[in-house]
Amino acid sequence: MKPLITGNFLLRSKSAVYLYHEYAAPMPIIDFHNHLPPLEIAENRRFGNLARIWLGGDHYKWRAMRAAGIDEHLITGRASDREKFDAWARTVPQTLRNPLYHWTHLELARIFGIDDRLLSPETADSIWDRANDLLQQDAFCVRELLRRAGVRLLCTTDDPIDSLETHGRIADDPSFDIRVLPTFRPDKAMQLNGPFPPGGNLTVESIHEYNVYLDRLAEAAGVGISGFASLIEALRNRHQYFHDHGCRMSDHGFGQFRYRWWYDESELESIFGRVRRRDIIETKDAERLCSAILHELARMDAEKNWTMQLHIGAMRNNNSRRFREVGVDAGFDSMIDGSHALHLSRFFDNLDKEAKLPKTIVYNLNPTDNDMLATLIGNFQDGVAPGKMQYGSGWWFLDQRDGMRRQLDTISNHGLLARFVGMVTDSRSFLSFPRHEYFRRILCDLLGEEIDNGLLPNDMDLVGSMVRDICFNNAARYFGFEGLCEY
Amino acid sequence: MKPLITGNFLLRSKSAVYLYHEYAAPMPIIDFHNHLPPLEIAENRRFGNLARIWLGGDHYKWRAMRAAGIDEHLITGRASDREKFDAWARTVPQTLRNPLYHWTHLELARIFGIDDRLLSPETADSIWDRANDLLQQDAFCVRELLRRAGVRLLCTTDDPIDSLETHGRIADDPSFDIRVLPTFRPDKAMQLNGPFPPGGNLTVESIHEYNVYLDRLAEAAGVGISGFASLIEALRNRHQYFHDHGCRMSDHGFGQFRYRWWYDESELESIFGRVRRRDIIETKDAERLCSAILHELARMDAEKNWTMQLHIGAMRNNNSRRFREVGVDAGFDSMIDGSHALHLSRFFDNLDKEAKLPKTIVYNLNPTDNDMLATLIGNFQDGVAPGKMQYGSGWWFLDQRDGMRRQLDTISNHGLLARFVGMVTDSRSFLSFPRHEYFRRILCDLLGEEIDNGLLPNDMDLVGSMVRDICFNNAARYFGFEGLCEY
Amino acid sequence: MKPLITGNFLLRSKSAVYLYHEYAAPMPIIDFHNHLPPLEIAENRRFGNLARIWLGGDHYKWRAMRAAGIDEHLITGRASDREKFDAWARTVPQTLRNPLYHWTHLELARIFGIDDRLLSPETADSIWDRANDLLQQDAFCVRELLRRAGVRLLCTTDDPIDSLETHGRIADDPSFDIRVLPTFRPDKAMQLNGPFPPGGNLTVESIHEYNVYLDRLAEAAGVGISGFASLIEALRNRHQYFHDHGCRMSDHGFGQFRYRWWYDESELESIFGRVRRRDIIETKDAERLCSAILHELARMDAEKNWTMQLHIGAMRNNNSRRFREVGVDAGFDSMIDGSHALHLSRFFDNLDKEAKLPKTIVYNLNPTDNDMLATLIGNFQDGVAPGKMQYGSGWWFLDQRDGMRRQLDTISNHGLLARFVGMVTDSRSFLSFPRHEYFRRILCDLLGEEIDNGLLPNDMDLVGSMVRDICFNNAARYFGFEGLCEY
Repeated sequence: MKPLITGNFLLRSKSAVYLYHEYAAPMPIIDFHNHLPPLEIAENRRFGNLARIWLGGDHYKWRAMRAAGIDEHLITGRASDREKFDAWARTVPQTLRNPLYHWTHLELARIFGIDDRLLSPETADSIWDRANDLLQQDAFCVRELLRRAGVRLLCTTDDPIDSLETHGRIADDPSFDIRVLPTFRPDKAMQLNGPFPPGGNLTVESIHEYNVYLDRLAEAAGVGISGFASLIEALRNRHQYFHDHGCRMSDHGFGQFRYRWWYDESELESIFGRVRRRDIIETKDAERLCSAILHELARMDAEKNWTMQLHIGAMRNNNSRRFREVGVDAGFDSMIDGSHALHLSRFFDNLDKEAKLPKTIVYNLNPTDNDMLATLIGNFQDGVAPGKMQYGSGWWFLDQRDGMRRQLDTISNHGLLARFVGMVTDSRSFLSFPRHEYFRRILCDLLGEEIDNGLLPNDMDLVGSMVRDICFNNAARYFGFEGLCEY
Repeated sequence: MKPLITGNFLLRSKSAVYLYHEYAAPMPIIDFHNHLPPLEIAENRRFGNLARIWLGGDHYKWRAMRAAGIDEHLITGRASDREKFDAWARTVPQTLRNPLYHWTHLELARIFGIDDRLLSPETADSIWDRANDLLQQDAFCVRELLRRAGVRLLCTTDDPIDSLETHGRIADDPSFDIRVLPTFRPDKAMQLNGPFPPGGNLTVESIHEYNVYLDRLAEAAGVGISGFASLIEALRNRHQYFHDHGCRMSDHGFGQFRYRWWYDESELESIFGRVRRRDIIETKDAERLCSAILHELARMDAEKNWTMQLHIGAMRNNNSRRFREVGVDAGFDSMIDGSHALHLSRFFDNLDKEAKLPKTIVYNLNPTDNDMLATLIGNFQDGVAPGKMQYGSGWWFLDQRDGMRRQLDTISNHGLLARFVGMVTDSRSFLSFPRHEYFRRILCDLLGEEIDNGLLPNDMDLVGSMVRDICFNNAARYFGFEGLCEY
Repeated sequence: MKPLITGNFLLRSKSAVYLYHEYAAPMPIIDFHNHLPPLEIAENRRFGNLARIWLGGDHYKWRAMRAAGIDEHLITGRASDREKFDAWARTVPQTLRNPLYHWTHLELARIFGIDDRLLSPETADSIWDRANDLLQQDAFCVRELLRRAGVRLLCTTDDPIDSLETHGRIADDPSFDIRVLPTFRPDKAMQLNGPFPPGGNLTVESIHEYNVYLDRLAEAAGVGISGFASLIEALRNRHQYFHDHGCRMSDHGFGQFRYRWWYDESELESIFGRVRRRDIIETKDAERLCSAILHELARMDAEKNWTMQLHIGAMRNNNSRRFREVGVDAGFDSMIDGSHALHLSRFFDNLDKEAKLPKTIVYNLNPTDNDMLATLIGNFQDGVAPGKMQYGSGWWFLDQRDGMRRQLDTISNHGLLARFVGMVTDSRSFLSFPRHEYFRRILCDLLGEEIDNGLLPNDMDLVGSMVRDICFNNAARYFGFEGLCEY
């Protein structure tokens, strides 16, 4: 049988092959949004076996296993690593056409050189042994994995209360030349109703947890948070602290995007005062408060020329039984529906009016909103920063061939593909960097097909230089990372 | 001119041809959701002519005819069968690219062997004569049509008050070996605002009709329905009765899915009491009542290991003039929009929490919700029953090549295609079983193309056995029908 | 390098090539919806240079330029024509895969014969000079541009208060045989909350502006508008006036379509009385009033056998800073989301009940609603006028290959493609008529591919005559224009 992962995997035309190998493949990587644990980079972690580096924390795989009828014991439970790996090996042949099938074999091929067999119960033994052998080598420790993947710079995702001490250790280590920057993600500063359940109102517990968080934030910032103004001061303090540690990006997660766009300060102080007294305020007031916090944070981003990332459309922790057993980010999240065009429009407009709209990347989870969002951000391109408003790469459930193609079509139809800042792994795993290769192949396949069909000019330099820009140069310029990761 | 319907119709690659003929075509059929009239099976009906078996009740064709400017007299009116057939023949050439064009000629080819001409006014005579001749033969009576189509088992759609006497007659007939099982569809037990109009509030008439239905249900169940508890008892009684008659599935129809998820018993008794006294209750209370009934019905399904089917997204009886003239299911229905992710999530979660979430198939009418729904059900895969939560096959307006491909892509991207229980006709017609062939060709075409493009492994046994599972084996196992329809 | 725009541009199969050149290309054009300024036709305007005829008013290009980081000075500001053209030339290479890239080069090729180079800073000089030379010739004045494009009839978009004097001048000119008809677009008669901002409530200013408009309408109609009944009388007067000047179409623009469907006359008089007294009425009452006006206007359309056009789904003037600087229609509009199926259904049904539903074309901006809308209009096909309810061609952000293909797939799956009245430019520019060619190529490419794949019969006459109908004949018959533009 012909291997699945070949040199021309996903490349269906001669032009695609040429574009990929000539222009895309040589480019290094700026992975400007992921959830890698900085500590494992600082300590250059070595993973004991394939299950640990591959299955731990990977809720994509967990969902597939549950759908295949695999017991939770073998997924997030106390089964042995080998048992879990075998359960995964039983699941893989059932994932045909799911992105996991491609990702799995691309990772085995590119990282472990295993491209002569497909994972299944029959091949589980040999793959387990081969990969585990390799994982003992220095070349398979975290830092070398990143280096071999071509990574020049990556941005982790961090809470404002984080000391960034680990980032400092990495930056100070002269033996390691990949830049690891933090990202400012203050979700908890706007989470009054807790992580669960969707549609849930504020509760005694959620308000309590929010206040606990505020206290920790106050401590980190060295600013007592007694009112709305001091909350913003504390956040600004941490924002500056992150800036001083190289951070150039914020990130926010939303279900439906909600923005209440007329507020007055005294009303905010009053609402926030009640929150601090642990009152269970109304949902409407909570939304008003969070809108104001978000607005203030966006102003800070604009003032420091950061990029604001918005992740829109997730409905999280739907399964309350499993939430209690396994917690967040465990594979029980899905897409939200509903309407948010007007809210997002008013948010951007209010910022733009005061010249405080930062560079912005919108990542969208429900593809039904693709076109709406891509046209919406186009209203706020300001004619100063090229590609200022970005429609982000296929996110989470859309991080596959269909989703990527739809995202590329969306920005092409409604904006400038040539200005696209490109792919991110958004991953918790050090094995997921072939996701960039996956994206690049899909990009080149799409462009190559259109060249061959006469939809694009048959000018390889023109199209190829766009490919290079999307793979690397656009991100370097957009974020101001040119100096940090030269190429 | 080359015939339209050939042996390799829809199969655009060698791999597709091989997959279809080798793996898909030989599989028998479990048609686990349709609207066939059991009486016509029991009586082995012979149809007098092609108009009666083909045009009667087929609101897909009626819509197309109306769009072509055909008068209602020739559609659902008193025109002769031949006049109606001729009106249809005039319409067919205008349906190019509509699924009706394929279905029409596939049915003519497969059932009547007419594949050398396309239906039009020029060929109407010859097709009418040829088909009518055949319809006089025993091979064209209902039972033989089913047998020749490869059907092993089918599930009709039945009201809880149905005596199932006809199903009993069919089951008791030793000369007929196709299993015909009922499905429990209690829509009327939750229909307080009548069938018309969309968006309509409860009225004196609708509450009256609802009470009339409750009285009939009480009689069928032998349980007086004085309160909410006794309503549930009556439904449970009928649920058991259906179970005793081989039923293993329920079915529910919705526009926007609405679920109000916190209720107390005494409040429900109070609301229901007002309904029984013919009060026009508020929409909110009606939703609360219906949510509670639905929840109780789902519990029953779970307790008996039935499968619950949800048909979501239809906006019915939009044309009130025609509704009065022609009634329901006459081609005046369309897709609804709006948001229901949260409602559905809470419904599944509340059931899951009490370990009462049955196997579930969600059929979706508005494709804009495809991705949202497919990811939503993934939150409730329980790691016990493989493929427990199913994203059902392309329904109604999506029962065509585009809709099927999108449905297959949706489950592939967000779940396990390999666990898909496959196609149903959802039909009122004994001529519509080539719809399974249509689906299978589309499935094999999709898979074959991806094999040839290197997106799937070039392993015919691996992909082919998935094809067999989707065509038959998955359904047999999922519903527990292995014993009923061996293969 | 091979030219981008060739004779077989976009045509990927032999059947497509044959269909296009044999059937589509020779057909003349009825451009039944556009925003061309009648005065420029009456005066047979000659444009001074390429910037004036090509960039002025073209907000598609403006958006792309802003996204490319071009300063507003060079877009809508006081920069020289040549500077603006150069800014556009810098932008074009960045529009690869955006429809602008195709449109730009198609227009250069078809209108100016420039098909040997692509617009970029390197070619800007030569293209500027060549095009400007040509623009001095009579063949590049407005009327000759229309004639050379094959236009037989076009419909402009006009306010009810327009005197139509210019249309009269054009009609009376025996030297010009292209019919130029007005379209009745009474948006301002229903615009109580002004053009800005989205989501905005009624204000003192918006109510004032509305009253100013009513006064002008009263004057044009010669009817004092003191109450709701006299408003309708004034509109009916203008409707008749437009009819007498050859108008056969109305047009209405909406964000989310809103229709409140039970009103009584005295309540309307009361609401309208408050409006006339400059009260700021509630949004709900404004919607009630506008619904009633719309309903009355639709009745007028039906009574005169006009066609009602509905443009649904735009969220306009999102950027308030630019709105103040540049005004409306300047590239700051996008798609709206939300739900309107029920509203539209009730609107059509209420008209249908009283036999006052006119021929209707629905143009949809947010493709997420494509399937819903196409099935919805199918509920109101009346079996009298073939193709009475039309799903209009790809509009605005959907006026590209993807959008057109989706629109064609949508009507094919849910209605009768064969009855489609076809393409419109919807344009302010005399250079945009190659958009019809673009559409026709895409149509033929789609059909040709399906013929070659066995999805459509290999019968060129059957498919080709459908192509001819869609390109021209359907529109001529549907609008009753046969006599006006024979072919």
